Amino acid sequence: MTWREGFIAVDWGTTNRRAYAIEPDGQVSNEMEDDLGILSVAPGGFEALVDELRVRLGNRPMLLAGMVGSNRGWREAPYVPAPATLDGLLQGLWWSDDRRCAIVPGVSYVSGDDADVMRGEEVQLFGAAEAGMIPRDGLVCHPGTHAKWAWMRGGAIEGFRTIMTGEMFNLLRQHSILSDALKTDANLGDAFEAGVDHGLHHDDLLAELFSTRARHLLGRDGHGDRASYVSGLLIGQDVRLGLRCAAENSAVAVLGKPELTRLYATAIRRAGRGATESEGEAAFVAGARLIAERLG
Amino acid sequence: MTWREGFIAVDWGTTNRRAYAIEPDGQVSNEMEDDLGILSVAPGGFEALVDELRVRLGNRPMLLAGMVGSNRGWREAPYVPAPATLDGLLQGLWWSDDRRCAIVPGVSYVSGDDADVMRGEEVQLFGAAEAGMIPRDGLVCHPGTHAKWAWMRGGAIEGFRTIMTGEMFNLLRQHSILSDALKTDANLGDAFEAGVDHGLHHDDLLAELFSTRARHLLGRDGHGDRASYVSGLLIGQDVRLGLRCAAENSAVAVLGKPELTRLYATAIRRAGRGATESEGEAAFVAGARLIAERLG
Repeated sequence: MTWREGFIAVDWGTTNRRAYAIEPDGQVSNEMEDDLGILSVAPGGFEALVDELRVRLGNRPMLLAGMVGSNRGWREAPYVPAPATLDGLLQGLWWSDDRRCAIVPGVSYVSGDDADVMRGEEVQLFGAAEAGMIPRDGLVCHPGTHAKWAWMRGGAIEGFRTIMTGEMFNLLRQHSILSDALKTDANLGDAFEAGVDHGLHHDDLLAELFSTRARHLLGRDGHGDRASYVSGLLIGQDVRLGLRCAAENSAVAVLGKPELTRLYATAIRRAGRGATESEGEAAFVAGARLIAERLG
Repeated sequence: MTWREGFIAVDWGTTNRRAYAIEPDGQVSNEMEDDLGILSVAPGGFEALVDELRVRLGNRPMLLAGMVGSNRGWREAPYVPAPATLDGLLQGLWWSDDRRCAIVPGVSYVSGDDADVMRGEEVQLFGAAEAGMIPRDGLVCHPGTHAKWAWMRGGAIEGFRTIMTGEMFNLLRQHSILSDALKTDANLGDAFEAGVDHGLHHDDLLAELFSTRARHLLGRDGHGDRASYVSGLLIGQDVRLGLRCAAENSAVAVLGKPELTRLYATAIRRAGRGATESEGEAAFVAGARLIAERLG
């Protein structure tokens, strides 16, 4: 079976994976998601899991992206340096011996002392740009465990910056002195917006985090919903740093999970910039199709 | 036995406790430390632990400070609002029915939207000021899990700010994607100073933390010792925020554990300010004596 006759695309991250069976017409005919991220796979265990994916989704060629191509994953596919194009990704694919599995390389960015890496988001970025979901030039925000702010030029990834906002929220929620207050989900509203405004206009994150606890202990918790306030605070500082990545003032394309793009788009608008939202999952499928078409 | 005939002072924190037998001449005749912080004590378990401390350190009156006086501790001793004096602390003591145990209240600070709390550091601050270890006027830095920057005036705690730097380092070391790199201890040296300089002059903490990982993955890890760099980065941002707490340019008195005061004093000097170091344990004993003398 060739790639054009249908394939499987896998977004295999650190803590979970999503796989899609994609038909010749580009439609997703079947999909699955589980928590078998690369950290849950023992060394030498990837081949069996790939076989099992084919039992579930069809005996087809398979395109894999994300941390599965890192030094902790199945095989390391070395980073393609930015500015990175789709051609660069194609040249950097790692191929299994039977040529029925290809792993997409990540992208690296170096500028002076700045250095950054991504794995997985590049498929979404190229897919979204090609499908017209985001502009081929401009600033893209991809929220998540490690939020990425990428600036695109002519459809290429010119550079990007990572801000570990999602991981920080999880650390605070699971292990910190604030954890009791963060058990609920963050929601749009006054508390979230107050947190965003603080994060946008102040650079005192590790002090303000403690202040949320002190205000609560002293009965001065005017913002009410602390989880939403802290989420807003973290996203506000993220947007403050991210907007510095590009000089122009055009709208920011926010690409990712809808529950996150909604929060980020709100924060970006409070910073006085326009924001559009696109779904990361659709962008991933579009990007995987784009690559598969070039594989023949 | 009265307080003047000798007593026990306990600094009982969240995760550990230190207790001292203090003689009438002020000397410490015996001491102990263990990890029975308040989070390790079941409700109703404090009385038995107090009895056991007396078996080990003598059947004496006992002064307790720190989180033992919080709503998660033995009994809540409500915060004394700043500006806080030694007299204020004495009036706020919680007494056991047999008057043989006293718990020192914490101090709160409210100014506009800012709110903050401390428990335990206040004994060190008053003790250090009274004993001449720190000036009675000026800025004091107390590094730790929750670093405190207090501004003293005439020996009173006029206000203070908490920055959760130590807790953040522990979260990153124990649970984050950076944990592999942070298993070693932080040391003074080039890597630490490079981190401090970044933290002093940039406000991009959650981006720079990820950059340390990216530089490592890309073989551009010029600073070498990442644990020291990250420690410096966190302490640098702490000092950047802390120095804003007081307008004057006099030397900062750094009070705490020697392994931490050394790092903070180095960072404060790199920010162009003078710094002196004093030992927090000696300050705690001095503060406990000061209180006990007033109890007769």
